[in-house]
Amino acid sequence: MTPLASTALGIIAGGGRLPLLVADAVRRSGGRPHIFAISGEADSAVEAYPHDWLSWGEFGRLFRILREKGCEDVLFAGRVSRPEMDKIKLDAVGMKLMPSLMRLTLGGDDDILSGVVRIFEERGFRVRGVADVAPELLAPEGRMSRRMPGRVDWQDIHRAVTILKVLGRLDIGQAIVVDREHVLGVEAAEGTDALIERCGGLRQWGRRKRTGVLVKILKPGQEQRVDMPTIGPTTVRLAAEAGLAGIAVEARRTILADREETVALADELGVFLLGIAVSRDDEP
Amino acid sequence: MTPLASTALGIIAGGGRLPLLVADAVRRSGGRPHIFAISGEADSAVEAYPHDWLSWGEFGRLFRILREKGCEDVLFAGRVSRPEMDKIKLDAVGMKLMPSLMRLTLGGDDDILSGVVRIFEERGFRVRGVADVAPELLAPEGRMSRRMPGRVDWQDIHRAVTILKVLGRLDIGQAIVVDREHVLGVEAAEGTDALIERCGGLRQWGRRKRTGVLVKILKPGQEQRVDMPTIGPTTVRLAAEAGLAGIAVEARRTILADREETVALADELGVFLLGIAVSRDDEP
Repeated sequence: MTPLASTALGIIAGGGRLPLLVADAVRRSGGRPHIFAISGEADSAVEAYPHDWLSWGEFGRLFRILREKGCEDVLFAGRVSRPEMDKIKLDAVGMKLMPSLMRLTLGGDDDILSGVVRIFEERGFRVRGVADVAPELLAPEGRMSRRMPGRVDWQDIHRAVTILKVLGRLDIGQAIVVDREHVLGVEAAEGTDALIERCGGLRQWGRRKRTGVLVKILKPGQEQRVDMPTIGPTTVRLAAEAGLAGIAVEARRTILADREETVALADELGVFLLGIAVSRDDEP
Repeated sequence: MTPLASTALGIIAGGGRLPLLVADAVRRSGGRPHIFAISGEADSAVEAYPHDWLSWGEFGRLFRILREKGCEDVLFAGRVSRPEMDKIKLDAVGMKLMPSLMRLTLGGDDDILSGVVRIFEERGFRVRGVADVAPELLAPEGRMSRRMPGRVDWQDIHRAVTILKVLGRLDIGQAIVVDREHVLGVEAAEGTDALIERCGGLRQWGRRKRTGVLVKILKPGQEQRVDMPTIGPTTVRLAAEAGLAGIAVEARRTILADREETVALADELGVFLLGIAVSRDDEP
């Protein structure tokens, strides 16, 4: 793979701090980031870097600027909401891509994202992932918080991982909440934040004590370059509010961009934060 | 099995109309229902039948009255919320049962319910189910609504059943929402109503058209006498509000107590309502 430094990296930026943190990491390692900020999604802080603002649907313009700026590599970072129809500004290329994009939305998440990757690759761009260009933004293995998981928490983590492996094969469920072996919630399309919030109200007797864990692992076959599990301070705050004991994420396969802030908050709120290695029999 | 008519049936009644509809059905078939209405849960309409009000935890009193009234059979009907600690009024027998009840809450749903059944059976009562004493309250096989599922709906139903069978083996998920093969939501502890409500906001492009189905089947190993899947007018109303095309439930294994009202509402709101036969390889 061509080292990043020799070419510019186009960062297609959704919301949150991740795009900026990726750009920082790329620059630190000698790369040249150029940010494509999605209107209505990206934070204006990305303007600290060379950048262009883009509307949903402006594929032609995106491909043209990518080429002009010498970006052979592209990376998707930051959360995006489903665009409202009237916010979509289709240029000629966007128009041509629309039927295949619409078709992609008929499959599961993985199909959509793999399809998007393919659209870029077919035009000669290499799609890079955070793991690839900024591995320091991934969760490490081991305990990050001061609080340690207890015996029951470990049982919950074990049960959660077992279930997530099965769910992953069905292309559902990056995340699950298990409280004393009882499955409180399974994430499908609603996102991890919504999952945690509803589980707060569902915990069984003994609420005064923190129990239950949120566990998040990569789905087998999940497009790692575009859709890595991600946690941050919000995840920790919601877990604490829901009364959970802690959070376990897959080490080296979960983006933990604001690591310092996230760990500090976990310590302040008394939840544990753990990176776990997940064995996968089905992997090459 | 002893015919019901020869003995009184103790109906332990939670909320909603189901306890009353079961009592009606039992009386129609010549049985003698006696209702044990749980305070704060049961509807006062159950007072139309011989009845006693009970607080959570009054197990000793319950067992005593069941014997006094000659109830050899008991049936649980109606929804219950998780009781608040300060609403629980433990009598001596309740006190003695508490440790095993607390232990039960550590397992999955099925463990809890099987445990409750066992507590009654150990004292010589037979636990009956709705399927057993009032089969006319179950969903029939086939289409009940005027609207028919389309080709895509059938694909969604098929995918949903495939996934539910896998989830059921993990003791999670009676219900799921699939929209054009995309899994929008999986039910764990939050209940079907909450599942449908959140899926309304998650549907993909093309919202103007009703798409997506709610599918609900019995979990393998689910305690059919105590915890049958149940739908009613609220389910239909929420599905319509969420923009779903329809609802498919397992025929003869789903309680559809208010059938007339439920089907009328489905027709009014334009959603389909279907009873499907589910093949189960793992059954004897």
